[in-house]
Amino acid sequence: MPYVKIELTREGVTREQKQILIKGITDLITETLNKDPHLTHIAIQEIDLDNWGYAGEQVSVLREKGITADKK
Amino acid sequence: MPYVKIELTREGVTREQKQILIKGITDLITETLNKDPHLTHIAIQEIDLDNWGYAGEQVSVLREKGITADKK
Amino acid sequence: MPYVKIELTREGVTREQKQILIKGITDLITETLNKDPHLTHIAIQEIDLDNWGYAGEQVSVLREKGITADKK
Amino acid sequence: MPYVKIELTREGVTREQKQILIKGITDLITETLNKDPHLTHIAIQEIDLDNWGYAGEQVSVLREKGITADKK
Amino acid sequence: MPYVKIELTREGVTREQKQILIKGITDLITETLNKDPHLTHIAIQEIDLDNWGYAGEQVSVLREKGITADKK
Amino acid sequence: MPYVKIELTREGVTREQKQILIKGITDLITETLNKDPHLTHIAIQEIDLDNWGYAGEQVSVLREKGITADKK
Repeated sequence: MPYVKIELTREGVTREQKQILIKGITDLITETLNKDPHLTHIAIQEIDLDNWGYAGEQVSVLREKGITADKK
Repeated sequence: MPYVKIELTREGVTREQKQILIKGITDLITETLNKDPHLTHIAIQEIDLDNWGYAGEQVSVLREKGITADKK
Repeated sequence: MPYVKIELTREGVTREQKQILIKGITDLITETLNKDPHLTHIAIQEIDLDNWGYAGEQVSVLREKGITADKK
Repeated sequence: MPYVKIELTREGVTREQKQILIKGITDLITETLNKDPHLTHIAIQEIDLDNWGYAGEQVSVLREKGITADKK
Repeated sequence: MPYVKIELTREGVTREQKQILIKGITDLITETLNKDPHLTHIAIQEIDLDNWGYAGEQVSVLREKGITADKK
Repeated sequence: MPYVKIELTREGVTREQKQILIKGITDLITETLNKDPHLTHIAIQEIDLDNWGYAGEQVSVLREKGITADKK
């Protein structure tokens, strides 16, 4: 009976990317914990950049400064 | 001091249905736990169908296939 | 596909009271939204009194002062 | 590694107010717990007035009755 | 800046299984969304069986009846 | 009507530190948003080190390697 909540900044995550996350996490839980996937629910919550703070600054401000969350 | 969060798919829940849930859950908590209702807050979060996964699939895909969450 | 999280102070809620909440909320959602109950999950999270704050004070302090959350 | 989620009613919180909350809470955690601010994330979730219940009533109904959440 | 919360029933998940979930989900997010893994936090919350309800019944009751969440 | 949830690793946060966080955040919200503090609830959830992942590793493993979350 897992419930997974993914909270992230609203920065253009596509429908296909969401599906990859949902499928991948469900499969991982099914294989690792031997859970019936019909008991696994996953919700993705996208948060506006003004509403997410990192190190004391709004992400919208960080982005204006050219600071991204991209993998280096 | 209860806080209740209801997360569900965004599929046309009406204002009246929300009020029924809020009133019903608050009354249930008040009666069962003898809690002052002024200490009970309830929030309803509606999640887009692309953002909810069940059994590894997006609910938007399930709905396109004609699979509903209706009581049988 | 509702997921309900009930967060409340850890103050001796019994197994029977938890069952009443789980059954009552599931039935309410099933009736109000016509949802298949097999898609409704409910989790109760009990929070230690030192870890809950109300009006700027720890609930453990409020209880020491004789202030309860009981229905009047 | 703190994660802070602020849930409140959607009633015109400005970008500047959000920044004050993000900066203030991050600083408070940094000072009180000696945590590296780069490990502190804060998310603000604004909830529509129809979707928040207090004492068994929708906040949208309370506001229509002239009942506010203002500090007295 | 993703934060992932996994809520599941407390049924003997091992330290190794938790590490597999943490590593797997972080890698999946890094690859799918191109996110710096130093911005991805994951928390696992284990919920007592009396505190999780499914289809209106406590999981502790379901387990007593021999109903498991195992993959079939 | 704010509800604030602070999730952090269980690493010896004292009762006094919790009270400082609760008082400080409540005051900040009261002043910034002009909210009645009797409508502000705050919950602190402490997460075991095996159950928190950062950059794909369990915090318990990071701590064994001598990596802390201390402010530098």
